[in-house]
Amino acid sequence: MSAGEFDLIARIRARCASRDDVALGIGDDAALLQPPADLQLAVAMDTLNAGVHFPHETSPADIGWKALAVNLSDLAAMGATPAWCTLSLSLPQGDGAWIDAFLDGFLELADAHRVALVGGDTTRGPLSVCVTAHGFVEADSALLRSGGRVGDDIWVSGTLGDAAGALAQLQAGNAVDPVLRERLDRPMPRVALGRALRGIANACIDVSDGLLADLGHLCDASGVGAGIELASLPASASMRSGFDVETRRALQATGGDDYELCFTAPQAKRSDVGHAAREAGVEVARIGRVVAGAGVVARGENGEPWAPPRKGYAHFGD
Amino acid sequence: MSAGEFDLIARIRARCASRDDVALGIGDDAALLQPPADLQLAVAMDTLNAGVHFPHETSPADIGWKALAVNLSDLAAMGATPAWCTLSLSLPQGDGAWIDAFLDGFLELADAHRVALVGGDTTRGPLSVCVTAHGFVEADSALLRSGGRVGDDIWVSGTLGDAAGALAQLQAGNAVDPVLRERLDRPMPRVALGRALRGIANACIDVSDGLLADLGHLCDASGVGAGIELASLPASASMRSGFDVETRRALQATGGDDYELCFTAPQAKRSDVGHAAREAGVEVARIGRVVAGAGVVARGENGEPWAPPRKGYAHFGD
Repeated sequence: MSAGEFDLIARIRARCASRDDVALGIGDDAALLQPPADLQLAVAMDTLNAGVHFPHETSPADIGWKALAVNLSDLAAMGATPAWCTLSLSLPQGDGAWIDAFLDGFLELADAHRVALVGGDTTRGPLSVCVTAHGFVEADSALLRSGGRVGDDIWVSGTLGDAAGALAQLQAGNAVDPVLRERLDRPMPRVALGRALRGIANACIDVSDGLLADLGHLCDASGVGAGIELASLPASASMRSGFDVETRRALQATGGDDYELCFTAPQAKRSDVGHAAREAGVEVARIGRVVAGAGVVARGENGEPWAPPRKGYAHFGD
Repeated sequence: MSAGEFDLIARIRARCASRDDVALGIGDDAALLQPPADLQLAVAMDTLNAGVHFPHETSPADIGWKALAVNLSDLAAMGATPAWCTLSLSLPQGDGAWIDAFLDGFLELADAHRVALVGGDTTRGPLSVCVTAHGFVEADSALLRSGGRVGDDIWVSGTLGDAAGALAQLQAGNAVDPVLRERLDRPMPRVALGRALRGIANACIDVSDGLLADLGHLCDASGVGAGIELASLPASASMRSGFDVETRRALQATGGDDYELCFTAPQAKRSDVGHAAREAGVEVARIGRVVAGAGVVARGENGEPWAPPRKGYAHFGD
């Protein structure tokens, strides 16, 4: 089925929910929005390219879900409440059925978070999805990467390595565990947890490029180092049964696409962290400690520093 | 020169100007911004793909300029003042020199409009540049596509067809007039004119896909029709000398990439329009009239309706 650009836009527009703070949504040169007067605006923008950020055979609904999820994950890592998004979609051809399926996934997640799709564009080009997400956060309440303090506990939400496990199975030509594949295709942005951690966590980042890499960014921004215990990294049953322990730990420590929150909090706030996690309905695990210095050291059961086969996913090979 | 993702981000971050209303710019999971309490936020998002939106051999500085310009043009068409932007850059390889040159063009235009680049991402993929631009406009003052009224004059800024003329010369393998090439590569967003037209224009759109196509969108949104006189379309000296009259008029009426403003205003406000144009330092030309009905009719000197060889640029061939 072939469809023109304006037909594609009409398809998108017809299915978009609105909000009271959207004065003008899709259909003009720009959207007009009314931010709340007393809050800061948090803005994140991430692109997914076919074959780089998702396997080529990923279903359009899953591409739609993931393109929004990775951006909501960024807002979650700031402790912000999502509100609006814009979408720029580059497609090799105008395929109405593809767009409809893409929107099924995109809007399912948008509706779950009351996010209004307010604008963007559709263009011809290699398959690529760029989303800008807007959210609100109280001034001086956002969770920054730079707030980590020596002595803080280091925490992570959910389980690690599942998406990387699915990708490893896929790339090896093996059967892919459906639980892991779901984690690769439909990451759950930890919005409620991010909100609940305001006033509790000192620093926060979302794990998109691999735990060691992203915790490293947090440490760099905070001017601190970190020590983590490999044995404490939370693992799903699928990861425990699907991989030997060495492979699993490498995937957990360095695999990308987790979209979990890694955060630091004072040791005195352990019960607050637990309460926030229960409130958000997400498991959290304590995996290490912020230390003076720089860099992240991961240790195995023997206490020896562990050298990862690679540090994490990075574009352009750094 | 090869550079890693985080080196590329550092290069971008080091060169970005800030603003007082940017609480946190590049370097965390999201930017934190403080919108003015009494204004609406205008948000536009447009992507440029290599070979679709610019010729492959376009210089990186010109790609940078144009990627921001097309978005500021959207804000201009709303009468909004630009403030912030985010940039998502997909590159086949991490090329530090390319990024530096790209930023030369991007930031030259950003600085001219006091726009702060506050976030985004760099990813591996076919060359593609996605920008989201944010601006401010007073509530109930934005210029919408939907405000056109029967009897309004139809106006256009600057000259039409220059960018399409450059592309035609390029595609024909001829020497490209440098004046036209500049208009293709470095469109000037009509921000000052858009601001000056608040309270004067009834409706406005920026001309990106060709005059007839974009005026058609304005008419559709306003529930009106339009009649324009081909002879009144403003032409540059380069277009007059470079093309026969038939070819030139087709390029002026249907060529893309003008990034001029097309707007309607009551006949009683002709002197106000002239004053606004002088204030903004831009020429404007009166090219027709809003009529009852639907669709755009262009007429030649003989008064006969003119049938365009094509209506305007559209992705996916509509």
